[in-house]
Amino acid sequence: MGREAVVTKRIPLKEKILSANDRLALENRKLFDEAGVLAMNLMASPGAGKTSLIEHTIRALSENNRLAVIDGDIATSIDADRAEAAGAVAVQINTGGDCHLDANMLRGALAELSLAEIDLLLVENVGNLICPASFQLGTHKTVLIASVPEGSDKPYKYPVMYRGVDALVVNKIDLLPYVDFDMPYFQRGVEILNPGLACFVLSCKTGEGLDAWLDWVRNEIEARRQGSR
Amino acid sequence: MGREAVVTKRIPLKEKILSANDRLALENRKLFDEAGVLAMNLMASPGAGKTSLIEHTIRALSENNRLAVIDGDIATSIDADRAEAAGAVAVQINTGGDCHLDANMLRGALAELSLAEIDLLLVENVGNLICPASFQLGTHKTVLIASVPEGSDKPYKYPVMYRGVDALVVNKIDLLPYVDFDMPYFQRGVEILNPGLACFVLSCKTGEGLDAWLDWVRNEIEARRQGSR
Repeated sequence: MGREAVVTKRIPLKEKILSANDRLALENRKLFDEAGVLAMNLMASPGAGKTSLIEHTIRALSENNRLAVIDGDIATSIDADRAEAAGAVAVQINTGGDCHLDANMLRGALAELSLAEIDLLLVENVGNLICPASFQLGTHKTVLIASVPEGSDKPYKYPVMYRGVDALVVNKIDLLPYVDFDMPYFQRGVEILNPGLACFVLSCKTGEGLDAWLDWVRNEIEARRQGSR
Repeated sequence: MGREAVVTKRIPLKEKILSANDRLALENRKLFDEAGVLAMNLMASPGAGKTSLIEHTIRALSENNRLAVIDGDIATSIDADRAEAAGAVAVQINTGGDCHLDANMLRGALAELSLAEIDLLLVENVGNLICPASFQLGTHKTVLIASVPEGSDKPYKYPVMYRGVDALVVNKIDLLPYVDFDMPYFQRGVEILNPGLACFVLSCKTGEGLDAWLDWVRNEIEARRQGSR
């Protein structure tokens, strides 16, 4: 209700666009909740390792959970093909030229899945550290995948993305010896923007640190099963 | 004139926005040409190495050329500070939340420079492999900086950006031994989208391959000086 009061202060056009997407996001959330699906929105720069993290997650969790992936890309089905090869049901959204997924695009892809047969839905957003942060999809959790070669100044330069997420993965730590990445400086930036954020420092290449991430996902699935969220 | 015919087929709102930006871009171009400035628009994913490439370019070319940098970021003046420390005049544009520079933002920054005293203007766009490709700034050349850890599938997944640029830098080749980057696959993608594109494979960290890039920039400045574009 406090939220409504804020919305009415916005200029009309923006209010309309935002609330249309937010309304659809709420409907998506309802679909997830009715079907008992835990849905996560994974966001990152191009090439940070979203697809690799998804592949590892599918391989590790598929034995005890039913996984599906929705991949958002401007073009190609490379990512959905990889998710499928790793063992998940996968749907590709090609946005044409759009720089982010929105709730309506996700809804279209959901129609191709049988939600009642899914425990965990991973939504891989378009590779972009800016625009996806502004569009709710209706997922329960948002996850940002940062990567070491991107550099440690990224929280400071992309604050909206870092501020809004529920968990942070720092990928490609196998490259730490070869690049200039100031981890304390990076972590200070994250802590300022998003105090206490769940953070998983890992390498999809070597597997180092993956267990903590997988445990977190398992716990989230379990919490949803028990309806305790 | 052929162009006008196409424009009239667009839906009204899009026509208005595009032509407003294009008009301003043409005005920026006129300012550059009248002052004898060569202007380049540098685009890339977050962390691909735009600022490092700019630092190297400033250090190598400042002796014989007057350089200026305009840096576009959502927040902070980290990049402009680095350009200034390397020896160029630098202006920072903070877009607030916007995911790209447009011709109007650039124009605002140009007002802070004395164009008659500049030979080369490097415009560092917001880190984003999608949106900046859709906004002309009025620069003479557009340059895309790719980086090896981003992965070799990027031309296929971000075709609009790869199709539209005048030169391509492939940075961080010092990391080739540590990541899976299929150079022939990458280059095939580039060649399909942008046949004959000028391509500079280099490492800002080790300096390998930088000379070819610097020669290209020098030649472009020289061509502009001689008015032969």
